[in-house]
Amino acid sequence: MSSLDPAIASRLKRDADGLVPAVVQDAESHDVLMVGWMDDEALHRTLTTGRGTFWSRSRQDYWVKGETSGNTQAVREVRLDCDGDTLLVIVDQTGPACHTGDRTCFDADQLL
Amino acid sequence: MSSLDPAIASRLKRDADGLVPAVVQDAESHDVLMVGWMDDEALHRTLTTGRGTFWSRSRQDYWVKGETSGNTQAVREVRLDCDGDTLLVIVDQTGPACHTGDRTCFDADQLL
Repeated sequence: MSSLDPAIASRLKRDADGLVPAVVQDAESHDVLMVGWMDDEALHRTLTTGRGTFWSRSRQDYWVKGETSGNTQAVREVRLDCDGDTLLVIVDQTGPACHTGDRTCFDADQLL
Repeated sequence: MSSLDPAIASRLKRDADGLVPAVVQDAESHDVLMVGWMDDEALHRTLTTGRGTFWSRSRQDYWVKGETSGNTQAVREVRLDCDGDTLLVIVDQTGPACHTGDRTCFDADQLL
């Protein structure tokens, strides 16, 4: 059970695993930095701590962005989309957002 | 079967339904406009037609953004993230991107 505000929880449309994608955007550069996944508790922690907190589908555990790397995300805004199934998280990013050291997770592989 | 370039298909990490989220960003304003879903064929069509094409999870069919509304997306860039499981689609958006008439799908519901 999560402590997420029931008024917010009632608007969330989660996938079969209880998750929604969270698009993380840099507040200054407006770059799309990464996409993580949140369940109710990750969203609750993000809203209440102001630090980007996600659910790792591979490790099946919560992670706080920058907790090990120091490349933290201070959360300025969180928005829910019109369908209630996607979050937009606007952050002040410290250092590179990508675990590869790239500025964003979308820097390396351009298809078009 | 999709005609997607096998060199791209081999790098895609799809969910259990064969889909990846596609974050759509405005090339000029840099606003995050919406998030849609693509399977291999939707990505193939997006790359080859230059029009944002998605898979509707609710209708279980392809849709071309703006096909009925006229609010089309001319695709400038498509990028795959470091994990191969998310796309970033940079577009020239005609008209509002949201079916509600809002400029983006994230305008209406601010949680923080």
